[in-house]
Amino acid sequence: MLRRSFSRAAVALNGTTINPNVKAAKYAVRGAVLDRSMELQRKMAAGEKLPFDKIVPCNIGNPHACLQVPLSFHREVLSLCISPTLATDHPHAFKKDVVERAKHYAAGLTGGVGAYTNSQGIPAVREEIAEFIAERDGHPARADRIYLTNGASEGVRILLTCLLRSGKQDGLLTPIPQYPLYSASLTLLGGALVPYHLNEGASWGVEMENLRNTLAAARAEGTEVRGIAVINPGNPTGNILAEEQIKDIIQMAVDEKMVVLADEVYQANIWKKGASFTSFKKVACDMGYMGEDGDERLQLVSFHSTSKGYFGECGLRGGYMEVHGIGAEVRAELYKLSSLSLCSNTIGQLATGIMINPPKPGDPSFETFEKERDDILSSLERRSIMVHKALNELEGITCNEADGALYAFPRIRLSNKAKLAAEAQGVPADEYYCLKILDESGIVLVPGSGFGQEEGTLHFRTTFLPAEETMHETLKMMTKAHKKFMDEHRD
Amino acid sequence: MLRRSFSRAAVALNGTTINPNVKAAKYAVRGAVLDRSMELQRKMAAGEKLPFDKIVPCNIGNPHACLQVPLSFHREVLSLCISPTLATDHPHAFKKDVVERAKHYAAGLTGGVGAYTNSQGIPAVREEIAEFIAERDGHPARADRIYLTNGASEGVRILLTCLLRSGKQDGLLTPIPQYPLYSASLTLLGGALVPYHLNEGASWGVEMENLRNTLAAARAEGTEVRGIAVINPGNPTGNILAEEQIKDIIQMAVDEKMVVLADEVYQANIWKKGASFTSFKKVACDMGYMGEDGDERLQLVSFHSTSKGYFGECGLRGGYMEVHGIGAEVRAELYKLSSLSLCSNTIGQLATGIMINPPKPGDPSFETFEKERDDILSSLERRSIMVHKALNELEGITCNEADGALYAFPRIRLSNKAKLAAEAQGVPADEYYCLKILDESGIVLVPGSGFGQEEGTLHFRTTFLPAEETMHETLKMMTKAHKKFMDEHRD
Repeated sequence: MLRRSFSRAAVALNGTTINPNVKAAKYAVRGAVLDRSMELQRKMAAGEKLPFDKIVPCNIGNPHACLQVPLSFHREVLSLCISPTLATDHPHAFKKDVVERAKHYAAGLTGGVGAYTNSQGIPAVREEIAEFIAERDGHPARADRIYLTNGASEGVRILLTCLLRSGKQDGLLTPIPQYPLYSASLTLLGGALVPYHLNEGASWGVEMENLRNTLAAARAEGTEVRGIAVINPGNPTGNILAEEQIKDIIQMAVDEKMVVLADEVYQANIWKKGASFTSFKKVACDMGYMGEDGDERLQLVSFHSTSKGYFGECGLRGGYMEVHGIGAEVRAELYKLSSLSLCSNTIGQLATGIMINPPKPGDPSFETFEKERDDILSSLERRSIMVHKALNELEGITCNEADGALYAFPRIRLSNKAKLAAEAQGVPADEYYCLKILDESGIVLVPGSGFGQEEGTLHFRTTFLPAEETMHETLKMMTKAHKKFMDEHRD
Repeated sequence: MLRRSFSRAAVALNGTTINPNVKAAKYAVRGAVLDRSMELQRKMAAGEKLPFDKIVPCNIGNPHACLQVPLSFHREVLSLCISPTLATDHPHAFKKDVVERAKHYAAGLTGGVGAYTNSQGIPAVREEIAEFIAERDGHPARADRIYLTNGASEGVRILLTCLLRSGKQDGLLTPIPQYPLYSASLTLLGGALVPYHLNEGASWGVEMENLRNTLAAARAEGTEVRGIAVINPGNPTGNILAEEQIKDIIQMAVDEKMVVLADEVYQANIWKKGASFTSFKKVACDMGYMGEDGDERLQLVSFHSTSKGYFGECGLRGGYMEVHGIGAEVRAELYKLSSLSLCSNTIGQLATGIMINPPKPGDPSFETFEKERDDILSSLERRSIMVHKALNELEGITCNEADGALYAFPRIRLSNKAKLAAEAQGVPADEYYCLKILDESGIVLVPGSGFGQEEGTLHFRTTFLPAEETMHETLKMMTKAHKKFMDEHRD
């Protein structure tokens, strides 16, 4: 009786009955091109002969997978935190500052790395982060405004969960192109992505007039625009925002009562000569928005991660968000959301602390650290230049120089023949191009459509992370595959 | 013009404008009593004299925080995975099986622990888990049905995100009492908690007739009940479901087209003499629901974690979910949701592998492992007995014996005077009791209302994790505080 009186699908959870927001969410960094690369990998493993002898993963900023070497000090401290007896059993195996740092963390960690921490993160690490921010910006920072997270992604998820109200048409101004975490999270949470286009012709800068018009249009259509996401240095664009632009964005957020989400995970990857990283928090404080208790004029949340920089510890899933101008009531809710998953992983938390507080001149580990860091950064810079130069030499491709981050986001002009071939296969033209390049070269790119691009333009994103000694070869493969594609698709 | 034409709050994100689902979600394990304990901790640190000399955290199953010692083999392997050179630099520092295991993982991890892994988890670890499940259950298990997660909580979140459709009145049958992750996640995702009461009088067992009536009533009211959560061994109740009960629940899920969420994180904590853990997956397969491709009659998702058992590695945030009878389309969506946060943390992933694949008889590390494991388990068992005995001796308290898990969930009868005093302070009576006990003894309990309890009954949850050598003292403090409370609140 009961069963018949209630209509429901034959299966509780299938492609039809799944939460439609889940189905609608797109995350291109791990999409069709990557799937195809895994298929090719299996074919190679099965002995099939392909036009290349290895897959080159340029789809994701995953430096260690491209054999970037981890920093010694950082890893040694983590080892000691996991196995504290190593230091007593092997007294000469570790430098003094390694042992001291591990002891410092142990003192603040009842039960060591195996215990849940405060849901907001280990207090000693939050203190370290606050000192780092204060020194970086020349303005005070507070440990109780910092939330440690499993990578920056978790912080973005938590913050957007607070910001976007289900059933309301709440929106977030999001740069186009953008890192698809934002578009996917918005779809998942039922929020609206309000796209503001970066200007490719002006080094992917933000145009304030365009931003204001976009906001006005969205509001006129009934979207309650509650925040603005900014990625600086940019992903996928690699641009660095000028301080003046940051100032304008902050003033607009104040005037328009929007929360600023400042994704600053590439802050240690700056390539532009003479440029340095300026945080949104610093500019905000310079402007007098100090975010003191009761001062919620500017509401700013900044994200950082262990996955990028010269550190590149993606797998450890460390990161933090700093909230500024966010009142106690909301901070308590952020804490509650963090406690739902109890705490972020302790190794990632400690890695975050070590990342922003590396050995200092005079410390026993400093020289090694300095050499390791400089080797990584200078090699990244050389590779960035190599990739941008090689891409700009290809027919139909133009690519802005990267100021920072780990990517190039070149524009590509495809022939009508190529576009029609893509259409015939039912895939976007940029994806068609990336699939063809993959089949020919083993290089995994991400189609620009995954990040968003100006109507009528086509792009792809590539990292410049393949090891330096293989980079010439990789670029040769890319050039050859591209030439073949162009030749095969002439109108 | 624009600004005035659009009505909005003075601040983008505050207690009024925050997502109301966030505000409504409750997570009692870290609620008012814990807040008060942190306040007392600060007072003690500031030199204030209190009736006790330390806070005893019985609010959360956090064994290492109660000084449970980590397992040597497990930690050593993790150290080597983080710093592979330790083994070559100090060839006599590690046993052969430790080095071999670390090498085994390294072989499957391009770039080591610093690289993002496959979003579903490291294939080598998923293979290990599949072997563990197959051996445990005597039925096949597949690595591609396993998703590694940051603790079990993340798996539950991902699964519920797929199951609950926003805007629909989708519900989940949830045991009462329950672990508040379920209630909080349901509130957050806009789903309905459909409570089915466990029978305290029958060792917290599931009553099928009650379950069926609950389902019928919820459906009659328009709730689309899409799944049933089961916690076995129980949290907070400590009961183990009889195999017959598991069978009935599975059959009901098949008949009623509901997904079973089997929270089995306490599977290695069994205290009842002669009892052993039986997984939902095993019973399902015994019943013929093999979950092969295309067989979606039974849809089952099981969760496991590194945080419990004799392992207790809460801080590492390791865990997995195994899906059974879930089709390819939904599995692809689970993969996509996992990729949104790229992957779970690598150390937690490896810890999960080591947990379910510990040293075997004959391995160099076996004897040490066996001793460490048995010491922990036998001490937990002794402490479980001590706590239950002591609680049952207290006036007004009755407590079912725990079959498993890490908790006691005693019922307490409070006087009218106590209830009125609680009402006067505007707090639930069980919370009032827990706050009074805390103030007197330093022991942090969790009020039963945080887990849900039968109307008109009051409970609290306590772990039995304080170190064995301090347990007598803790129970003495508890007894004293309870007596004082009862004396002060006689009608």
